[in-house]
Amino acid sequence: MCRATEVVSTVERVVDMSSPVMSQDELNLIPPLNFAMVDNGIFRSGFPDSANFSFLQTLRLRSIIYLCPEPYPEANNEFLKSNGIKLFQFGIEGYKEPFVNIPQDTIREALKTLLDVRNHPVLIHCKRGKHRTGCLVGCLRKLQRWCLSSIFDEYQRFAAAKARVSDQRFMELFDISSLKHLPMSFSCLKRHVFTAILIVMIIDKAGRFKAKSNVKT
Amino acid sequence: MCRATEVVSTVERVVDMSSPVMSQDELNLIPPLNFAMVDNGIFRSGFPDSANFSFLQTLRLRSIIYLCPEPYPEANNEFLKSNGIKLFQFGIEGYKEPFVNIPQDTIREALKTLLDVRNHPVLIHCKRGKHRTGCLVGCLRKLQRWCLSSIFDEYQRFAAAKARVSDQRFMELFDISSLKHLPMSFSCLKRHVFTAILIVMIIDKAGRFKAKSNVKT
Repeated sequence: MCRATEVVSTVERVVDMSSPVMSQDELNLIPPLNFAMVDNGIFRSGFPDSANFSFLQTLRLRSIIYLCPEPYPEANNEFLKSNGIKLFQFGIEGYKEPFVNIPQDTIREALKTLLDVRNHPVLIHCKRGKHRTGCLVGCLRKLQRWCLSSIFDEYQRFAAAKARVSDQRFMELFDISSLKHLPMSFSCLKRHVFTAILIVMIIDKAGRFKAKSNVKT
Repeated sequence: MCRATEVVSTVERVVDMSSPVMSQDELNLIPPLNFAMVDNGIFRSGFPDSANFSFLQTLRLRSIIYLCPEPYPEANNEFLKSNGIKLFQFGIEGYKEPFVNIPQDTIREALKTLLDVRNHPVLIHCKRGKHRTGCLVGCLRKLQRWCLSSIFDEYQRFAAAKARVSDQRFMELFDISSLKHLPMSFSCLKRHVFTAILIVMIIDKAGRFKAKSNVKT
């Protein structure tokens, strides 16, 4: 169901981080169509092409969740290879209403990959970042306890005139019960707590070294 | 230009973090209208009301940037007070085209507040999260070197049928040169580097304690 490709990076990630603020002549980062941040370490967009690669490098992605059945283009594969980005492909056919039939199992598998922080930062994309990507993000929002009207509102913001009732019905009926065991430590809900715990643990370790040193002298 | 209100929290932040994944009956978090994540620690929305307070608590906000001149409602003030959230008010009048006149200086001051990580996580909001909020986010995107067509695309996603050419012209002409000195350590561009440096510094400190202890014994 999911085809995963891992390529060890052999090339240094080249991102100009030296100057955080640029002049107006230097507005040269081009996010992919329908790009947005979904949550900490999770992004969404339409299909990126070579014009978007410089921008994507700034995200320092660890993986991409690709929701179309078509093979990944050669130029994009090269980009992943040279930046050490893993590709998870979940091939969901593009439909036109009324023949929409999104496979629940595939979305469930994609969600598991999405929730795994070892894959973060991750970019989800399909062709236009509207329907397949919108459904996956909508199911994530259910896990995050968003009410349905807000889930639909977000879906519609990206799908705009192409919004489908059938996609919204899919999100409404999607059963999240089997995903109960998966943690969401990346989420807005938890990230700050997680970072605070990490820092306290490290400081505590430093303190122990100091204490040992005092005892010995 | 900016009215800042700080209230020391006297009440524990009450957020149920015990169960990350809920059943379908428990989709009870209601984000404000037009809510979205802008970047690490930065959110945007329309005017939140009491129905949104439970959701906002999950963001663990440190501050709110409020872009309307009207006084903040009593219920919202109470919410800020009991959650220790600081309010920065930049009163920008709501206009209707062709009489749009967004003050550059006010947006510049709001941007400085927005870029200060001590205020993060921060929520930007106006009335509907379309025009004033859209302009401030658009100016942030210029600092992040996004090309104008992508800035306008994002603006239009939130403004939808209410998108204004005059707002887009404002963003295009907005001069970012005076903000060059401000760092953006929160940004997608830099967060991971920043965290890595912090952790390396702490580990290094721990190592020095260990080294000292070895020398003394």
